[in-house]
Amino acid sequence: MRLVDSLLQGNIRALAKAITAVENGLPGAEEILTALFPYTGKAHVIGVTGAPGAGKSSLVDCMIAYYRKLGKTVGVVAVDPTSPFTGGALLGDRIRMQDHFLDDDVFIRSMGSRGSFGGLSQGTKNVIRLLDAFGKDIIIVETVGVGQSEVEIMNVAHTTLVVLTPNAGDTIQVLKAGVMEIADIFVINKSDLDGAHRVKTEVEAFLCLKEKLEEKDEWDIPVIPVVAIKNQGIDSLCTSIAEHKAHLLGTDKWLEEQRLRLSKEVQDMAALKIREHIFNELKNNAQWEQLVDKLYNKSLAPYEAVDYILDNFFNSVYDNRYK
Amino acid sequence: MRLVDSLLQGNIRALAKAITAVENGLPGAEEILTALFPYTGKAHVIGVTGAPGAGKSSLVDCMIAYYRKLGKTVGVVAVDPTSPFTGGALLGDRIRMQDHFLDDDVFIRSMGSRGSFGGLSQGTKNVIRLLDAFGKDIIIVETVGVGQSEVEIMNVAHTTLVVLTPNAGDTIQVLKAGVMEIADIFVINKSDLDGAHRVKTEVEAFLCLKEKLEEKDEWDIPVIPVVAIKNQGIDSLCTSIAEHKAHLLGTDKWLEEQRLRLSKEVQDMAALKIREHIFNELKNNAQWEQLVDKLYNKSLAPYEAVDYILDNFFNSVYDNRYK
Repeated sequence: MRLVDSLLQGNIRALAKAITAVENGLPGAEEILTALFPYTGKAHVIGVTGAPGAGKSSLVDCMIAYYRKLGKTVGVVAVDPTSPFTGGALLGDRIRMQDHFLDDDVFIRSMGSRGSFGGLSQGTKNVIRLLDAFGKDIIIVETVGVGQSEVEIMNVAHTTLVVLTPNAGDTIQVLKAGVMEIADIFVINKSDLDGAHRVKTEVEAFLCLKEKLEEKDEWDIPVIPVVAIKNQGIDSLCTSIAEHKAHLLGTDKWLEEQRLRLSKEVQDMAALKIREHIFNELKNNAQWEQLVDKLYNKSLAPYEAVDYILDNFFNSVYDNRYK
Repeated sequence: MRLVDSLLQGNIRALAKAITAVENGLPGAEEILTALFPYTGKAHVIGVTGAPGAGKSSLVDCMIAYYRKLGKTVGVVAVDPTSPFTGGALLGDRIRMQDHFLDDDVFIRSMGSRGSFGGLSQGTKNVIRLLDAFGKDIIIVETVGVGQSEVEIMNVAHTTLVVLTPNAGDTIQVLKAGVMEIADIFVINKSDLDGAHRVKTEVEAFLCLKEKLEEKDEWDIPVIPVVAIKNQGIDSLCTSIAEHKAHLLGTDKWLEEQRLRLSKEVQDMAALKIREHIFNELKNNAQWEQLVDKLYNKSLAPYEAVDYILDNFFNSVYDNRYK
């Protein structure tokens, strides 16, 4: 395909076109992804998550600058509805993104917070794959770490940063949403503010407890103070990120995880296709509408209607294997 | 079933048992839901959503007190990981929930923020249905309004309150996550603080714009200032909630929406079952493991592996109808 060839040759417009095709499920999207798949797997995918207002975007900004100085190319996928990258910052934008917009080796893409083709999680994975095939060395995925779907998105990252701040009293609460478990590195942003030490201590206490409860992992999760807005602590953070990558590569975890993720991703994709298939089949289906009437009259219960769908659309398979 | 009968007779322990069964997908869970389904549809389900720290739980606390004074029974389902109801408030709990825990006519249940049987959204729907069949007049669903899955949960509510505060600069940003669209009533909590008027104006400007852009809905979305911690404005809020219910009933929207939701819910449930089926089938499946090896070696692309699943598990249906 010409688009695929152009993309592999480093044509940014081809990349943008491919992303649009993939995001919106345009004809040819699957073929593009299939053709590019052999070229993926080289990028280091870094997830950045945390509560709204934690300064994730400022941090990402600093990280872009750091990696660009090292001569690395960077892709950013922002799925955070509160991120200035996604146009979420209505109330004044403190981000110096303008610098990077003029840099051809930084590609920034925001994902809508809902309704991406194949779901937000799959959409994000697909866009990361395109950036990877395009040849980006570093791909940063920024997401707000409160919702379940956002946590799922973070599964695509090799290294996940969880960003905390001293002034957010709710920080620890927010982390209960399952974010604690996915952190490879904790970042205490705004660490020049009062309370930074307290947050650091809290996180370290949590990590100590976690270590005692779980089987020992070889990776000691670091807690790194930074002040993104002043570009402080970024070297130390990015050194930790590199160490985490080295750790993954050294223990075969990188490859092992990739295998598991691919398996799960394909199963998710298949389930999604089947779901779409059901939805299409039942649209304007007279027999189904009669069943919905029964549901509505409470003469049929939801799980009974589920059986109808399974019996009628998946009878051969379902009867033989499942029941 | 004895459990179902006890529950319908108002036995709280039977309700708690049924919820546990349904939440964890224990044997008999589907039968319980099916048996109780004819008794559902009477409760007014009120959703309460907003950013962490907006004071949702304090507000819910006031609402419980209000409805109890009217002699109504109340159920609360908290799916907010930052809610004190779910045990999320580590840093000092300002909530006077103790009062309600002693009240037999208030039933409070927290949902884990992940891993509920059938997904969080389905789990919440099922628990609401149990509370509804149990005879609760009012069911309040509290969730943090940032993630996509949390927004989906709100689809179960007849009346959705979006809670804003003056001191949250990120409020409007957070709302971009798709929460603006689901509000039936805006609540400005902590409205005794500076900036309350500004937030109210911003929301009203948004609503004015929205009204111009969209087809006109008959319901004028109110913006109601309250101070939950001082129990101020709750009467006015609950009057609006009652007006919204009357509006829904008056325009047949209540029933119409219920029909649509049932149809979609059953389709989701069926898709989920099929997905579980695929996951189970592929576990320890040698042929599948070979395919994953190919994925891993990049000699097979994800969408090609998807076709394998569809061909092998749903060939008869899929070939005939879809391809």
